[in-house]
Amino acid sequence: MTQELRSRVNADGTLELSLATVAVPELKPNEVLIRVEAAPLNPSDLGLLFGGADMSTAKVSGPTDSPVLTASISAGAMRAMAGRVGASLPVGNEGAGTVVAAGSTEAAQGLVGRTVAVAGGAMYTQYRCMDASQCLQLPHGTPAAAGASSFVNPLTALGMVETMRAEGHSALVHTAAASNLGQMLNRLCIEDGVPLVNVVRKPEQEDILRAGGAEYVCNSSLPTFMDDLVQALIATSATLAFDATGGGKLAGQILTGMEAAATSTAAEYSRYGSTRHKQVYIYGGLDRGPTELSRNFGMAWGVGGWLLTPFLQKVGPEAFQGLRQRVAAELKTTFASTYTKEVSMAEALQLDAVSVYGRQATGEKYLINPNKGAAPPS
Amino acid sequence: MTQELRSRVNADGTLELSLATVAVPELKPNEVLIRVEAAPLNPSDLGLLFGGADMSTAKVSGPTDSPVLTASISAGAMRAMAGRVGASLPVGNEGAGTVVAAGSTEAAQGLVGRTVAVAGGAMYTQYRCMDASQCLQLPHGTPAAAGASSFVNPLTALGMVETMRAEGHSALVHTAAASNLGQMLNRLCIEDGVPLVNVVRKPEQEDILRAGGAEYVCNSSLPTFMDDLVQALIATSATLAFDATGGGKLAGQILTGMEAAATSTAAEYSRYGSTRHKQVYIYGGLDRGPTELSRNFGMAWGVGGWLLTPFLQKVGPEAFQGLRQRVAAELKTTFASTYTKEVSMAEALQLDAVSVYGRQATGEKYLINPNKGAAPPS
Repeated sequence: MTQELRSRVNADGTLELSLATVAVPELKPNEVLIRVEAAPLNPSDLGLLFGGADMSTAKVSGPTDSPVLTASISAGAMRAMAGRVGASLPVGNEGAGTVVAAGSTEAAQGLVGRTVAVAGGAMYTQYRCMDASQCLQLPHGTPAAAGASSFVNPLTALGMVETMRAEGHSALVHTAAASNLGQMLNRLCIEDGVPLVNVVRKPEQEDILRAGGAEYVCNSSLPTFMDDLVQALIATSATLAFDATGGGKLAGQILTGMEAAATSTAAEYSRYGSTRHKQVYIYGGLDRGPTELSRNFGMAWGVGGWLLTPFLQKVGPEAFQGLRQRVAAELKTTFASTYTKEVSMAEALQLDAVSVYGRQATGEKYLINPNKGAAPPS
Repeated sequence: MTQELRSRVNADGTLELSLATVAVPELKPNEVLIRVEAAPLNPSDLGLLFGGADMSTAKVSGPTDSPVLTASISAGAMRAMAGRVGASLPVGNEGAGTVVAAGSTEAAQGLVGRTVAVAGGAMYTQYRCMDASQCLQLPHGTPAAAGASSFVNPLTALGMVETMRAEGHSALVHTAAASNLGQMLNRLCIEDGVPLVNVVRKPEQEDILRAGGAEYVCNSSLPTFMDDLVQALIATSATLAFDATGGGKLAGQILTGMEAAATSTAAEYSRYGSTRHKQVYIYGGLDRGPTELSRNFGMAWGVGGWLLTPFLQKVGPEAFQGLRQRVAAELKTTFASTYTKEVSMAEALQLDAVSVYGRQATGEKYLINPNKGAAPPS
């Protein structure tokens, strides 16, 4: 039996988070059973977990080791949930753990006792059955916590740099740049020689990035922000940005800055603005408000959504394998993650925890250990 | 000598429109001299003409046959004008007229006496010197007024359909759909079998399009607009829109409608929304306010600028030639334009005229005849 975290949206407009106990499926020949010991609470998990609910209405009932969290979902948010009403959904995009059993194939047997990372979904569970081919085998001695975030953030950082190359840009802008992902991207860009403009909101976030070797850090809370941004854009020639905030004016400000940088060096007046294409991809929604674009950046621009999965489908399995191997090799350096706290699944459903990781604040990242406090495998 | 219309932005933040008298340049062997008899006042001309000025501050002085219009430009708008301060710029993207003189080549001589259309810029002038290769020769007997809009609107309509095909969409949405361009696009889509969703703001605009055979017409002023739009998007499967308004919520509403249409037929819940890419290209700025996107349309979306010139560069000279020939052949049918009024250049600088064509209102299109009232060529 395995205990796992479930999220259900009910037809009456309530969200219900709880722990379910289910049977571990029988292993197929090429499958392994992973004792999950570390699974991050990423921003990309929260949409499925919270189901659009207003978490300020959350209440918790039931025993401490098997709590039930409920919260209300607005009528507007419920419209987007129509497809999942009544379904008890497992959660958790990625995680790592120890292989404790395996099917009959050589590939599966070879993983027994090893720490592996997977991005199979349903990772907030004590035991997860996965095909051996889906397992990223971590170097001997790697603790599960160090491999928990081997996919979403590292592949997103690599995806940003690969997208930059594929679309003909030569430098990047990144917002919410002091996040785990942002620090990772900063290290990756330094290693690969890609100029990166880091946009943050607080002085301490500037410090984190400068300590990490970042050359261009712009604080959007400062009155000098637009000037700082334009200077960094002139210095880097960045014409591609990845924006984690989504709502508000930031995406438009970046395009305005790119246009100002382009025209500051232009030889002659062009009535339609610079001809160089300027692009912002919105890959997160830290600000859920509307995106507001004051179109003072010519006509050669685009704003759009960006997601990891379609990117990986586009590059194909061979390139994907190359990226995975690079992540495994640089897991303790370029792609290292840090966490504020390790919690059990039951602890993750308590209001104090939800109020912290639910904010998605930079520097407050939680790790779920579904086997926290459980006896080690025999 | 030729009289031509000039636009100048002065360093003190004023716009000055006037008529200048300049010498006609000597013809090169392959050039022809066109007596310009018809040049439209397109929305795409107004940016250069008005130079970002607040036209509600416009004043006119000078004699009726050589007026000088002045207007103030805000400090914000002046920043975007830095590249043209002090320069006296000719205006007018396109027009048509009679070839009254030619250089020595056979190609140039062959055009003498013919009506030709050109998109050379500086068309608000009595006589325009052009290379023969740039002239679109109109069928015998075509009046200049019928050929005045042979480039911008027809090629934009064709560009929209070609972009749709090139980017893998199968139907279109168009806003400000009762404009000359919109009616043209409606005829083109009917002829080419492309499903088209026409978005307008007034009942009489609905009538114009339905009388033109349009099947899907949605009025954004009606309370049923979003429902009407979603139904039309379900019926057409349109995932590409061209938006002339730019500012406000319309672009976002179209994406929301496309997403609702996509998910209404989806088999299962997808946490990131439908995977079908939904695109809005903004090609005009009838609403100069910010574009506001309420991102409730998943992650597979894009909004961006679209301009005719880069499109034509992308398709290359051969395809461009094919499009030009189609326009010439269908100038009286698919690509016919209608005008509210024909004015001289001096009349175009009077406040009553500016207040009408400056609004860019659907159904109020002006045509400049730089030789209005002048003696016909001897």
